[in-house]
Amino acid sequence: MRDLSGKSIAIVATNGFEQSELEVPLNKLREAGAEVHVISLEAGEIKGWDKTDWGNTVPVDKTVDAVSADLYDAIVLPGGQINPDLLRVEPKVLDLIKAFWEQKKVVAAICHAPWLLVETGIVKGRKVTSYPSVKTDVINAGGRWEDSQVVADQGLVTSRKPDDLDAFCEKIAEEICEGLHERRAA
Amino acid sequence: MRDLSGKSIAIVATNGFEQSELEVPLNKLREAGAEVHVISLEAGEIKGWDKTDWGNTVPVDKTVDAVSADLYDAIVLPGGQINPDLLRVEPKVLDLIKAFWEQKKVVAAICHAPWLLVETGIVKGRKVTSYPSVKTDVINAGGRWEDSQVVADQGLVTSRKPDDLDAFCEKIAEEICEGLHERRAA
Repeated sequence: MRDLSGKSIAIVATNGFEQSELEVPLNKLREAGAEVHVISLEAGEIKGWDKTDWGNTVPVDKTVDAVSADLYDAIVLPGGQINPDLLRVEPKVLDLIKAFWEQKKVVAAICHAPWLLVETGIVKGRKVTSYPSVKTDVINAGGRWEDSQVVADQGLVTSRKPDDLDAFCEKIAEEICEGLHERRAA
Repeated sequence: MRDLSGKSIAIVATNGFEQSELEVPLNKLREAGAEVHVISLEAGEIKGWDKTDWGNTVPVDKTVDAVSADLYDAIVLPGGQINPDLLRVEPKVLDLIKAFWEQKKVVAAICHAPWLLVETGIVKGRKVTSYPSVKTDVINAGGRWEDSQVVADQGLVTSRKPDDLDAFCEKIAEEICEGLHERRAA
């Protein structure tokens, strides 16, 4: 893993995030030296989903209202069936994701989180992957879907499922170290 | 509610169906005289989702493998965040839904179940509604989305959420009583 000292990363999620898809990036990116904040709709804690039932809670470091893309180098969006479905109807979450994209920063989404790339329109014309059930929604939104453990396109990093987490975290670190990403029209 | 004596209805779902969205149609349509079967991927029972956590189980009457659209007048698809996300990657479920559509029978979906209309392509060019989080996916698949408690278009019946269940069930009964529905190109 690349050295991420001096880098700041926002993980944005709410209740029902797939537990490993928040915990593994949080731990790995912190171990690599980054400052990583868990950001959610409200202060307190959020509850994960551990494969088939509610799982661990994670403390919320900041609320969406209290942050902006200016403060971070990357945004990481964990999946789960419930979490991105709840976030995609929150305009302030969508605005935050779009701000990272417009500021040419790394935007990373795994599993069902590409729904947020659909909702923001970021996926249009980009090479991406996702959990298989989300594939049709990604393609209908103009994404160029691939079945790979990790796909990177101009700083947009996507993966399919928990098994892909090592490759997902490595690629996030690599893309952060590359610096700002030019976003050419698709 | 119209008299549904002599009519047969298939409710297709798996674990994580929004509990009221299966139980209310099951009870109301049976009370109206229809024979109603709960159909799932495997025999046994399936577990509902009661707003924020796992809820009641419901016995499975038939498996998808053991039925065909020929045997029924209508198919009803309950929502929930988990259930339609699991079903949309099951080719035999998608084939069954498409067979109802091709046989000009009533196809009804509520809440997150319009994902199954996205996955089968049925939604293209049709007037429909859905849970708000699914709106973008429905529109990207070519659906003409409306914010109404129930929308009917050539035997395709859709509703937004549990609060709409009375109107949803009434409209299903009405559309069944109308008989076969011509499916003109959109």
